[in-house]
Amino acid sequence: MVKWMGSKKRTPPKFYIFNLIPFWMRIDHALDDLFTPESVAVVGASAKEGSIGYNLVRNIVEGGYAGKVFPVNPKYDEVHGLKCFKSTADLPHPADLTIMAVHADISNSMIEEACKNGARTFINIASGFGEVGRRDLEIKMREIVRKYGARVLGPNVFGVYSARASLNATFGLRNVVPGNVGLISQSGALGIALMGMTQNQGIGLSAVISIGNKADISECEALEYLGADDRTKAIFLYIEGTKDGRRLMEVASEVSKIKPIVAIKSGSSVRGALAAASHTGSLAGSDKIFTTALEQAGVLRALNLNDGFNWLRALSQLPIPGAEGVVVVTNGGGIGVMSTDSAERYRVKMLDNRDLFEKMFRKTMPDYGNASNPIDITGQGKNKEYGMAFDIALDEPKIPAIVGLYCQTADGKPMEIAKAAIDSAARSQHRKPITFSMVGGKGIRDAMDELNQAGIPCYGSPDEAMSAMGALYKRHRRLLEEKEEPVVFNDINLNAIQSIIDRAKEVGATNLIESDCNEILRLTGLQFPKSGVAGNLDEAVALAQKIGFPVAMKVLSPDIIHKTEFGAVRLDLEDEHEVRVAYESIMASVRSKMRNARIEGVIVTEMICEATETILGFSEDPSFGPVLMFGMGGIYVEVLKDVAFRVAPISGREVMKMIRDITSYPILAGARGKDFRDIDGISDAISRISYLATQVDDLVELDINPFMALDKGMGCKVVDSRMTIRPKEMKS
Amino acid sequence: MVKWMGSKKRTPPKFYIFNLIPFWMRIDHALDDLFTPESVAVVGASAKEGSIGYNLVRNIVEGGYAGKVFPVNPKYDEVHGLKCFKSTADLPHPADLTIMAVHADISNSMIEEACKNGARTFINIASGFGEVGRRDLEIKMREIVRKYGARVLGPNVFGVYSARASLNATFGLRNVVPGNVGLISQSGALGIALMGMTQNQGIGLSAVISIGNKADISECEALEYLGADDRTKAIFLYIEGTKDGRRLMEVASEVSKIKPIVAIKSGSSVRGALAAASHTGSLAGSDKIFTTALEQAGVLRALNLNDGFNWLRALSQLPIPGAEGVVVVTNGGGIGVMSTDSAERYRVKMLDNRDLFEKMFRKTMPDYGNASNPIDITGQGKNKEYGMAFDIALDEPKIPAIVGLYCQTADGKPMEIAKAAIDSAARSQHRKPITFSMVGGKGIRDAMDELNQAGIPCYGSPDEAMSAMGALYKRHRRLLEEKEEPVVFNDINLNAIQSIIDRAKEVGATNLIESDCNEILRLTGLQFPKSGVAGNLDEAVALAQKIGFPVAMKVLSPDIIHKTEFGAVRLDLEDEHEVRVAYESIMASVRSKMRNARIEGVIVTEMICEATETILGFSEDPSFGPVLMFGMGGIYVEVLKDVAFRVAPISGREVMKMIRDITSYPILAGARGKDFRDIDGISDAISRISYLATQVDDLVELDINPFMALDKGMGCKVVDSRMTIRPKEMKS
Repeated sequence: MVKWMGSKKRTPPKFYIFNLIPFWMRIDHALDDLFTPESVAVVGASAKEGSIGYNLVRNIVEGGYAGKVFPVNPKYDEVHGLKCFKSTADLPHPADLTIMAVHADISNSMIEEACKNGARTFINIASGFGEVGRRDLEIKMREIVRKYGARVLGPNVFGVYSARASLNATFGLRNVVPGNVGLISQSGALGIALMGMTQNQGIGLSAVISIGNKADISECEALEYLGADDRTKAIFLYIEGTKDGRRLMEVASEVSKIKPIVAIKSGSSVRGALAAASHTGSLAGSDKIFTTALEQAGVLRALNLNDGFNWLRALSQLPIPGAEGVVVVTNGGGIGVMSTDSAERYRVKMLDNRDLFEKMFRKTMPDYGNASNPIDITGQGKNKEYGMAFDIALDEPKIPAIVGLYCQTADGKPMEIAKAAIDSAARSQHRKPITFSMVGGKGIRDAMDELNQAGIPCYGSPDEAMSAMGALYKRHRRLLEEKEEPVVFNDINLNAIQSIIDRAKEVGATNLIESDCNEILRLTGLQFPKSGVAGNLDEAVALAQKIGFPVAMKVLSPDIIHKTEFGAVRLDLEDEHEVRVAYESIMASVRSKMRNARIEGVIVTEMICEATETILGFSEDPSFGPVLMFGMGGIYVEVLKDVAFRVAPISGREVMKMIRDITSYPILAGARGKDFRDIDGISDAISRISYLATQVDDLVELDINPFMALDKGMGCKVVDSRMTIRPKEMKS
Repeated sequence: MVKWMGSKKRTPPKFYIFNLIPFWMRIDHALDDLFTPESVAVVGASAKEGSIGYNLVRNIVEGGYAGKVFPVNPKYDEVHGLKCFKSTADLPHPADLTIMAVHADISNSMIEEACKNGARTFINIASGFGEVGRRDLEIKMREIVRKYGARVLGPNVFGVYSARASLNATFGLRNVVPGNVGLISQSGALGIALMGMTQNQGIGLSAVISIGNKADISECEALEYLGADDRTKAIFLYIEGTKDGRRLMEVASEVSKIKPIVAIKSGSSVRGALAAASHTGSLAGSDKIFTTALEQAGVLRALNLNDGFNWLRALSQLPIPGAEGVVVVTNGGGIGVMSTDSAERYRVKMLDNRDLFEKMFRKTMPDYGNASNPIDITGQGKNKEYGMAFDIALDEPKIPAIVGLYCQTADGKPMEIAKAAIDSAARSQHRKPITFSMVGGKGIRDAMDELNQAGIPCYGSPDEAMSAMGALYKRHRRLLEEKEEPVVFNDINLNAIQSIIDRAKEVGATNLIESDCNEILRLTGLQFPKSGVAGNLDEAVALAQKIGFPVAMKVLSPDIIHKTEFGAVRLDLEDEHEVRVAYESIMASVRSKMRNARIEGVIVTEMICEATETILGFSEDPSFGPVLMFGMGGIYVEVLKDVAFRVAPISGREVMKMIRDITSYPILAGARGKDFRDIDGISDAISRISYLATQVDDLVELDINPFMALDKGMGCKVVDSRMTIRPKEMKS
């Protein structure tokens, strides 16, 4: 296995190496022993009902596990009808999987003892570690297992369930229904409750992994395992935070190419985000970055449990539609309209082919029915009409997906409607996705259960049926996305950039001076306003004429830092006359304030008039590494916080998505033919900054503000910038 | 009853009269006969199972109605064990309520016959009217009932349910559970299905009204009735559109002061909104206006059925909290964090009093529990700990509301937790609202049902529990709102404004000329940039000096309309010299293009530099009357559509809400101490335009663009405006 160590220090080259090895080749053998062990030892097994050591053995035995089970506890001779061993030393052979259900205080020493006796894969159930401030115990535990080449899941977990091995090695719920959804939970209590929720929703589980404090095995390895596990069709991830966001993102990105991941990330409220805020951080609250990262990785982020489970049911049971476009079949106009509203909300395209639909569907409805989409077969529509309409829609190649809606009528028999839909779907061999919604009372629950059991997810409201269809379409679009690598800019001289930084580091700087910032951005391939240095008045006039009016002028003097305070800056000089006046007035002003200032001349710069102020940069996130930021400048970024983030590096396609993400994008794109700015120029600049951010590890923050976007074809220009570098490490 | 006729013609004076009479005094006696008749005739009663005429009689009889039931149908002697009459003429006495279940073709003549026989209150079930293009039949029907002073609900309805009379006069579902929610549905199919849905959700119904085509009795009268009905604690309204939005808004506004109205308005998708769009309409899509109007009226608009029903359960069962602030009691950290995120989403304030909570709640949890809010009593928390925590929270005056969360644990007994919560709530006499969520599998449904039945709404996810709490808090805020009347501006000379419009009407104008627009806005009390007319060059210079530089100058000539094309406009004149050059150049340019133009001089105008461009105006909506619009000007309104709408007239408080509604509000309000514009000036101008829009019926559209907002205390200035007036009516 390739080890990918923490992210405190960003190590971009590894990122590329990492990606060259398919994730399923990286899976540690220890993970196999977590999910398909041939023997399981439970240290701390107990005959005391209600205790964790009791529940673990009971769940393993009652869950139908076929391997050997070794209860270990010096206090008992027998636990749950099995011989109980005094210690791991007494086992007939080391167990593939050793579960520690003992107190935190002794768990480390008992893990070490088990290691000495040959155990190599552990689950440490115990709480009382990092979550109560005893991070030292965790570090100790990791050191022990590393010493023996062993691995451990936990501490502070409720265990693992594996459908493949019929192994319920949790102290959670019994009677887990095997199926095709893999569940990873950082929260123990919620994870157990979610296992229950799947039972109630008819979702079967392929595996459950409680990841807890993640002292060794993390959600990333769990994701990799479930990604490679062919029983798992969809993955549900509950996560509160991660120390290694970049790795999570990379793994999720690989796995989500193969199967859907639905994630709930909690802790999104402003209060939490504000707590971690710094200057740029107030824009780049870590939750916003987390969200961005998950999206970049192709993960479907649900805002609440309902949405998450609704999507999971569709994603784990249905085929992904082959093209954009759904047809809604309904017996009620009202819910038809509601589903149309929802379709827009969830970016589901309602097919629009009135003539074709009229020809196809008219025979399924009375005269007053509506054969345009939604197909309203009216309250007269019974199982026969529903069946006909579904058959037609399923047979027609131009219809990729179907949403069925049913309003209970006085004499309607919901179960018959359900069966008609099930028959149609079976006839078509479930080639197309159907989501369903039934609204009504008596008999509706049974009909819904029938549909759900037959693999047609049925929901209590049209909105949910359409939301689930929306999740399928997000998957559809994700699968269509071809892999696109970030651009590599060979024209950027990284060595030259590093030299500038090294020089600054040598003198102990953490912020680069203006000329260094400019030089690095020039080397990165960004443009600047035309500018030059003039040694005297006539040179200044000639330079201004060469640059083109209007120009700005400021003094060039090593003695004057705050030029404005010295009256040494003049803007908007529109002709030779104004340049002359400005030159004389700057000189007079500087002399009057600092008689002996060394004056080397003036800097004359092009004024940019027709352009839009934007802001571009990146800053280093402790978990995700360099995060790019682009947004509207000036008042927009200050007040409206109209900025988009992406974890670097990003491909050209993602750059364009990022630009379009900002609310004010139409202002750049040129609504109504006005103000069409150089989007290609912006895109090129973002790609270059992305490359810079990932290649030059010593750069930790960059702000280009303002970054002026000129008209199409005219490029963009850096007006001002700030850069922060990693401080020189102290030698001990 | 005060009749409030259509809205084609806006009649603002009636609006005020209307509001002086409490809505419950306006309820027509006919509505009483709909809901509490002593006798019901069913014309078209049938013995044929499955027919509408059969279901109606069956539902009335089986529903336990205690009054007399008269089936009417010449084909039968007996229907459902009751004597069947040949015609309404044969009845022993006219029925209080006559339900017509006959074909559309004959329904009108049979209604007339029944009227002749003394019937005065009808439900016309028949479809085949306006919804299939036979609006004429509806008009005819209304004429008939009006002739006899009768009233009719329908056509195209499924009937009425009234818990008060145990009357299920619908052909919909049987076994309606009586309760305290009133249901009004414009859609028949959905209405029937919703009745079913209430059964499944444990919501009892006080009344159900199918309003269908609304030929006579509308959703407004239904709302008034349910508003006055003391059995009804909350109202659910499903509506697709209305011809008389203003009246709906006024009625809803009155009723929502007494009890909550939850509404679903479907047809919100852009496609639908675009269809009805006109120039300003593209900003003021009718759905946006509808949404605004419902919000102004204090209605809670749900975007989908789930939310709507979730809210209804809380609103119909729980007390409204007395103050802002909730405490969350949970046994799982994960769902605690999720609920905190949700609290922010639904504007529920999480109480923050760590010291107090530590003191109060520490005894309910082990050491590693968390006594700050959310109160995490941990997985160790059983019924005893939940009960203690609830008791403490319910007893503490500083805690106005509670959200309970439960994650199923391995050995947890959800039913015991439910009972603990129920006991606590009962001990506290249900004085404070509690919403609950339980996440888990086996046993969870039963525990949830137990809570629901005990009047503690329990939901399947923490998000829903918090969303329901959010609905209670919307109600809380609505109830705190004191009635505030729109400002009446006695300083506005409405007669003078009317005279200007009358003069324009006389010459057949529909758009007012610039000077008329300016004069009307001046009379309305709006400000303009300083300006004057100069007859010659020296006067122009003197005028410019008086106004203050910079100024703009344009020619004053009756012959020149498009001044810019004639080169007759100059902007940004900064001193006397520039004024002189501009004057000469304008004259030369005009002369060169139209030798004989009559030139009366130039208009010199103040240039406004430090200000923010906004847009202000109103346009007449066919359903809601004058709708005010305010937004950011220039590129914001063009591209970002950053505008807010309100149905006029509005109070000062609503004006401030409107200003704050726009996304760019911080730009006006002065984020970080910059650019603080004259919000009071904007607010005054909107109030004045609101008054103008409601008082001067002949004005149908006004656009002030740009409307420059100056710095605080400096006012706002009209730079340009357009007005459209109602055309003079043609005499026949």
